Amino acid sequence: MYLLLVFRAMRNFIVVGHKATTTPNFSLEDIPGTSGRLDILCRAVTAAFVLSHGIRKDVCVYLVLLGGEVPKTIRLVGETLRHLNPDERTTAALLKKALAVPATPPWAMSTSGIFVRTGGLAEVLADLKDARLIYLREDGADIRGLDAGSLSGETAFILGDHTGMTPDEEGLIEQAGARVVSLGQTSLHADHCVVLIHGLLDTNVFMPG
Amino acid sequence: MYLLLVFRAMRNFIVVGHKATTTPNFSLEDIPGTSGRLDILCRAVTAAFVLSHGIRKDVCVYLVLLGGEVPKTIRLVGETLRHLNPDERTTAALLKKALAVPATPPWAMSTSGIFVRTGGLAEVLADLKDARLIYLREDGADIRGLDAGSLSGETAFILGDHTGMTPDEEGLIEQAGARVVSLGQTSLHADHCVVLIHGLLDTNVFMPG
Repeated sequence: MYLLLVFRAMRNFIVVGHKATTTPNFSLEDIPGTSGRLDILCRAVTAAFVLSHGIRKDVCVYLVLLGGEVPKTIRLVGETLRHLNPDERTTAALLKKALAVPATPPWAMSTSGIFVRTGGLAEVLADLKDARLIYLREDGADIRGLDAGSLSGETAFILGDHTGMTPDEEGLIEQAGARVVSLGQTSLHADHCVVLIHGLLDTNVFMPG
Repeated sequence: MYLLLVFRAMRNFIVVGHKATTTPNFSLEDIPGTSGRLDILCRAVTAAFVLSHGIRKDVCVYLVLLGGEVPKTIRLVGETLRHLNPDERTTAALLKKALAVPATPPWAMSTSGIFVRTGGLAEVLADLKDARLIYLREDGADIRGLDAGSLSGETAFILGDHTGMTPDEEGLIEQAGARVVSLGQTSLHADHCVVLIHGLLDTNVFMPG
């Protein structure tokens, strides 16, 4: 008897919210206006996980929140993620709960599959040092030119919010060895980038190599 | 002197909401639970129009709302669309306003670029009889096999909600001469399908023909 092992490599998405709040003191009635545009990150979470009938188990999302005194990161893990609905408000409510958990450098669990800690982009990049890092930037090389081999292992896609990365962040990302790629000439929101990345990986459009 | 005419063909998206409310009596605090899943249509609108810094002018969205006594359709026109923000709640508020406008068979304007009328899928298909109709269904032929020539004119992409089309709707769509195509084997939400369609058209991955 042969055992067929089907291995789907983990897809990580790192989304940096430069003004995103690190406290739960925002209003679900006005997420964009009261949370430092946490709505952008909420939509990126939905794009990363939700399928028509289920959740992508092979996805992990890191939300880097830099709009408070101390940076915080929320990690969402598809394998154990619960209570995520496709609408924006439910996602924001889950993040609000996570931000109410006292954060320390080690991860603390909020609800199932959602974790929070202090620390920002440098710490996330250190966690993912064994993954193939891919930084989405409009002036990068066409993502469709990446070779399939380089995407067969664990990958981590780095996306900014509406403000773009700072020179310090650019430096960290470069130092971590990320490839700089672009999805095309049209400038898109982070969640739409996530949908396109999944679409490309789902349909294996990459060059053999 | 030569005059260079750059023509970008209109992209229409028709999204059918089988249970979507036709009245403004739903709560912005619980859109999925009180509006017959109008949240699905809100996200499709955002996916169709919003870019990182602007609105796609060459897009028109038809939301077919079948969850009331009389079907209604809301049309959003990129060329004149105003007040659309990327968050779900703002979009729902715009649709709420449109549903408060007394609807008759001729289009009535709500806010700039948003129109409403009575009538459902048959009327929309009649409006778009000169467009190339493309029906997204999971068992269709791979969309990437469409020839570029057939996509160079006005196109209209037909998408269902979470409940799928009824046999009557399937009949209407077939009679209208729509091509049945698929984005891949992964079953996706309507808004994610819209993002992928834009992505494919933006990067011209279609076969010459």
